[in-house]
Amino acid sequence: MDFNLNADMAESYGTWVMGNDEALLPIINSANIACGFHAGDYNIMANTMRKAMENHVSIGAHPGFYDLHGFGRRPINLSVNEVEHLIAYQLGAAMGAAALAGAKVTHVKPHGALNNMAANNIDMAMAIARAVKAVDASQIFLAPVLSQLVVAGDKCGLSVAQEIFADRAYMPDGQLAPRSRPDAMIDDPDMALTRSLAMLVEHKITAIDGTTLPITPHSLCVHGDGPSAVAMAEHLQTGLTEAGLVAKTLPEMMV
Amino acid sequence: MDFNLNADMAESYGTWVMGNDEALLPIINSANIACGFHAGDYNIMANTMRKAMENHVSIGAHPGFYDLHGFGRRPINLSVNEVEHLIAYQLGAAMGAAALAGAKVTHVKPHGALNNMAANNIDMAMAIARAVKAVDASQIFLAPVLSQLVVAGDKCGLSVAQEIFADRAYMPDGQLAPRSRPDAMIDDPDMALTRSLAMLVEHKITAIDGTTLPITPHSLCVHGDGPSAVAMAEHLQTGLTEAGLVAKTLPEMMV
Amino acid sequence: MDFNLNADMAESYGTWVMGNDEALLPIINSANIACGFHAGDYNIMANTMRKAMENHVSIGAHPGFYDLHGFGRRPINLSVNEVEHLIAYQLGAAMGAAALAGAKVTHVKPHGALNNMAANNIDMAMAIARAVKAVDASQIFLAPVLSQLVVAGDKCGLSVAQEIFADRAYMPDGQLAPRSRPDAMIDDPDMALTRSLAMLVEHKITAIDGTTLPITPHSLCVHGDGPSAVAMAEHLQTGLTEAGLVAKTLPEMMV
Amino acid sequence: MDFNLNADMAESYGTWVMGNDEALLPIINSANIACGFHAGDYNIMANTMRKAMENHVSIGAHPGFYDLHGFGRRPINLSVNEVEHLIAYQLGAAMGAAALAGAKVTHVKPHGALNNMAANNIDMAMAIARAVKAVDASQIFLAPVLSQLVVAGDKCGLSVAQEIFADRAYMPDGQLAPRSRPDAMIDDPDMALTRSLAMLVEHKITAIDGTTLPITPHSLCVHGDGPSAVAMAEHLQTGLTEAGLVAKTLPEMMV
Repeated sequence: MDFNLNADMAESYGTWVMGNDEALLPIINSANIACGFHAGDYNIMANTMRKAMENHVSIGAHPGFYDLHGFGRRPINLSVNEVEHLIAYQLGAAMGAAALAGAKVTHVKPHGALNNMAANNIDMAMAIARAVKAVDASQIFLAPVLSQLVVAGDKCGLSVAQEIFADRAYMPDGQLAPRSRPDAMIDDPDMALTRSLAMLVEHKITAIDGTTLPITPHSLCVHGDGPSAVAMAEHLQTGLTEAGLVAKTLPEMMV
Repeated sequence: MDFNLNADMAESYGTWVMGNDEALLPIINSANIACGFHAGDYNIMANTMRKAMENHVSIGAHPGFYDLHGFGRRPINLSVNEVEHLIAYQLGAAMGAAALAGAKVTHVKPHGALNNMAANNIDMAMAIARAVKAVDASQIFLAPVLSQLVVAGDKCGLSVAQEIFADRAYMPDGQLAPRSRPDAMIDDPDMALTRSLAMLVEHKITAIDGTTLPITPHSLCVHGDGPSAVAMAEHLQTGLTEAGLVAKTLPEMMV
Repeated sequence: MDFNLNADMAESYGTWVMGNDEALLPIINSANIACGFHAGDYNIMANTMRKAMENHVSIGAHPGFYDLHGFGRRPINLSVNEVEHLIAYQLGAAMGAAALAGAKVTHVKPHGALNNMAANNIDMAMAIARAVKAVDASQIFLAPVLSQLVVAGDKCGLSVAQEIFADRAYMPDGQLAPRSRPDAMIDDPDMALTRSLAMLVEHKITAIDGTTLPITPHSLCVHGDGPSAVAMAEHLQTGLTEAGLVAKTLPEMMV
Repeated sequence: MDFNLNADMAESYGTWVMGNDEALLPIINSANIACGFHAGDYNIMANTMRKAMENHVSIGAHPGFYDLHGFGRRPINLSVNEVEHLIAYQLGAAMGAAALAGAKVTHVKPHGALNNMAANNIDMAMAIARAVKAVDASQIFLAPVLSQLVVAGDKCGLSVAQEIFADRAYMPDGQLAPRSRPDAMIDDPDMALTRSLAMLVEHKITAIDGTTLPITPHSLCVHGDGPSAVAMAEHLQTGLTEAGLVAKTLPEMMV
């Protein structure tokens, strides 16, 4: 049985640094590269892609709302046409940066508020999937399990990789528990590992109220920011490997 | 004998409008599409590309410095690596927008201060040409006659289309006369047409001091802003056609 | 009986031009100067203030959300502290620009989505009013009639000037009819003048369903963009004056 | 004998963090608050001012070029009018934020490339000083020793506080040694302290070639970024105090 560890990357901007990409790259298998709209810039993107390649980490475009000050975490109401344009531009930009770096963009994962809104809005999810397909139909579409993004990716005929979170609790309807809840975050590395194994091997999520949700996950998202992020990622990568699972990049997973 | 008329396009931003793209598109043959860094945005790019296609106008990426407030007209000192990243990102973004719009980017022309600096700086010109080649070696490289950009495009093995200006005077060294000179601009449409014909047919520029410079031009740049821009473009397109020249898109020119 | 005509100004940005400030300044009595967050920049602000003074037009700060691409028309969820910071920064910036220009900021009017949200949200309205008071308690607070901004300005002890729209229809609850309705805009200059007179002289708004709403208005807002904006403003200024009303700046109104 | 320790502050932006303001505030005496153009934003400014006040640290505006991506470190050619507008806007914005925070802006220090360019360009230095004077003539003007900014501040009748750097070598003409030189930075805390004492007590700088330059310094600039910045600042504050010098805020220094 195989698995994939993904993390958001290249979220620095100009002289501002965010996250710890250097430390995470040897641990993860796939990197979601911010595309300059909510974070990242043309230099950071190309440079991070070069380092990802050196670490045998596959590369994804991580497009977000055009909102540096809000880091793409604030809902912005766009028409479906605007969402298509938003995605096409950023995926293209990532592909351009990758071509220069001698790399290849192999997946797309929307960021922040864009991801959250589309997870529950089929029109927005379809706009994202359509744009990905129009720009490069061979892209893997990395989408949260049980979300409208999975539905949209399927409908558009994209290869859909389904994503779970190691360190987040789930609601009975399959959505992430809002961060405002005290039990939303799973900080204990052992509990995160146990939950990840259950999700990956038994194909089920146990929600906050005990409900069991069947899933077919491919990739586990870990976070790059926060003081204990690298240790958590390392614990999960090691624990899953020791449990007999085989780490793969997304293109290796989805063949 | 054939010729090409090109103009900068998609230079609006958000709710701000610049130029008169609707009126110019039926007149010109190739459009240089601003890529969101000095002007343009993800919506304007895709929408303008759609209209260009309807008008049988070929599409180019028009990358500039990352400087909306200065409209890309201010020199910014970047390393050659940064210049490569700058171009790769914007060319990729334009290709993404084009893929969505069902269009194709077929040429690249740098904008403003980036173009002016690279015209006289072989290192910068080489960085631009290298990035274009890395992202898509089939792009036509639209470069000012007698500039280092022509040299760089040739060295990188790109198809180089050489550009002249209908409404600008030239210095004896082949550079554009600075706008600060009273004789820098050629406002009279008949004089602009006469000069354009001399450049296109006789393959020579007569500089401000009477010096004659041999050139091998392919494309004539017209401006989209200013109250008389559309009339000037129309006068040139009509006059050149009446003189027996055949208007073509850049890909048609460069076969 | 006196009245005031106000308009939004300085909404250009860098090389992009919006509106027709030169033509409107001789017609209006008070100018709401964009503060660089949704439109305007440090040069345009100071230069527009200089021209306002030459035209005996009083100057207001017109703060908006930090959103150039959306022109401040998109709702952004901010905490009340963030709203206070947003207003204090922009009002201060406008006062700095005015000091340099030898002018004086005498009123504050929030822009776009910020104004619309606060009109219906007392917490947000109070945050705006508190920030204005903290920075300069002598500012006139220009707020839509029948809105929470009037309530907030009163509660904070600010001098509140109440604003009506000449060219917009009103709902029975006193809110502006949404632009999506076919009858939202009043394009006929004579009808706009008739309605304006009714509002200013008879102190009542006739809503879309015939309901009459009592108001105590001080200032009439006219728009600067659109092809007929200047003609409409001129028609209103002339018509109100011919009806015997006396045009005044906001500080003259509120003594 | 008294002295002042100043540092740049509030250089975070949105969710990106820069420097270690919390650790530096108890050590320094005056804070130069970034004004949102090269770093800082409306929230960070007000929040940092509140913390500065709690630490009895006086507050300055730290205006820079309008260039977030380049952090204000890249030269931008502006006219003197544009420089005046640039300063007036940012000083006003800082005063607005301070008024809300219950604080007071008492000095102005230009940032980065703006400071470096004006240090050697009397026209630009005069534009900055004129704008400061126009907005608030009571501001202390914090300017590098031996620079045109000192000349300009004096000419405009501002109270000029002269600044030296503890950790930078000087050229024989009084300019900072360029960072490209291997001996440009003084990393050894003891050497930095010894040099600072010589500058503050003996009123002289020993340049890189041994030349002695007479100076009349008021304030010592320490840096907030870099892993050893806080330790260096602490070493200087302690060392100078133990040598009998008395730490003061800029307003206390300049009475």
